[in-house]
Amino acid sequence: MTTSEQSAPAVRPGAVRFDGPEPSYDDAGLVFIGRVRSPWASRDDCPKNLSDARERGQPARVEIDARWRGALTGLGVDRWVFLLTWLDGAERDLALQAPRHADGPRGTFTLRSPVRPNPIGLHLVRLLSVDLDAGILTIDAIDVRDGTPLIDIKPYLASIDAPPE
Amino acid sequence: MTTSEQSAPAVRPGAVRFDGPEPSYDDAGLVFIGRVRSPWASRDDCPKNLSDARERGQPARVEIDARWRGALTGLGVDRWVFLLTWLDGAERDLALQAPRHADGPRGTFTLRSPVRPNPIGLHLVRLLSVDLDAGILTIDAIDVRDGTPLIDIKPYLASIDAPPE
Repeated sequence: MTTSEQSAPAVRPGAVRFDGPEPSYDDAGLVFIGRVRSPWASRDDCPKNLSDARERGQPARVEIDARWRGALTGLGVDRWVFLLTWLDGAERDLALQAPRHADGPRGTFTLRSPVRPNPIGLHLVRLLSVDLDAGILTIDAIDVRDGTPLIDIKPYLASIDAPPE
Repeated sequence: MTTSEQSAPAVRPGAVRFDGPEPSYDDAGLVFIGRVRSPWASRDDCPKNLSDARERGQPARVEIDARWRGALTGLGVDRWVFLLTWLDGAERDLALQAPRHADGPRGTFTLRSPVRPNPIGLHLVRLLSVDLDAGILTIDAIDVRDGTPLIDIKPYLASIDAPPE
């Protein structure tokens, strides 16, 4: 690891970069299947997490590109689903981060920060409406910037997605 | 959508492919940060989901490559985390699938099947031991083949990862 003092700017005191040359980030490739349409125009407007987003009481939308709409078949209103997003714009090279809410630097894999080797967002949301033909889902809340790319939708299953007992 | 009869082999009756030419799958790139070491040598050996894996009572291991180990700092034993894996080998082009357990074809986004436009696996597991220096995590169970690439580790937070109330 390299201390933030030795390398690039714009990391908070205490943040630490991964050591060595940047990897090429091409071990596997993603296709964007749609976009999130949210009330949040910039990262600064974004709620800091989904609880915060729910408190603001503003629904959002997901737009699925035409090619992928068939895969929505059977998605029902009031269902909970995980959205996986691509948090473009997030840095990928911090091993330790110093979030405002914490009293010191924390390992990236103990945080839900967008800054991580693969900046994938995981968001549990409720479906308020589903338009299969138009490829539009309305969701109860979201904590990403307008236009954020979508990479997957998975049904929430309490039997595997909650700790047993 | 194209019916399975018109196109490639090896899909079950009722499965339907997405229409049109394959996309290039290069909207964004992933880096593999490690590998899952599981008791399951082939896809046929794999438990069908994490509940099934837990019933088999066989722990597994996650090996994190050296570059990324600093990001494990602070990960504690007995913590629940989501692992995100890259389910290499899974097809990416089915809109509808006909799982054995279902009575008919279902939309891919209503299933947790590895077959999806971006074959990312989401697995909630418990940490049994953490060796930061060696980059080795022992986990209670896993439902992927030995050698499956790892792309992220996220802490489970009941406040955002479980449906409210």
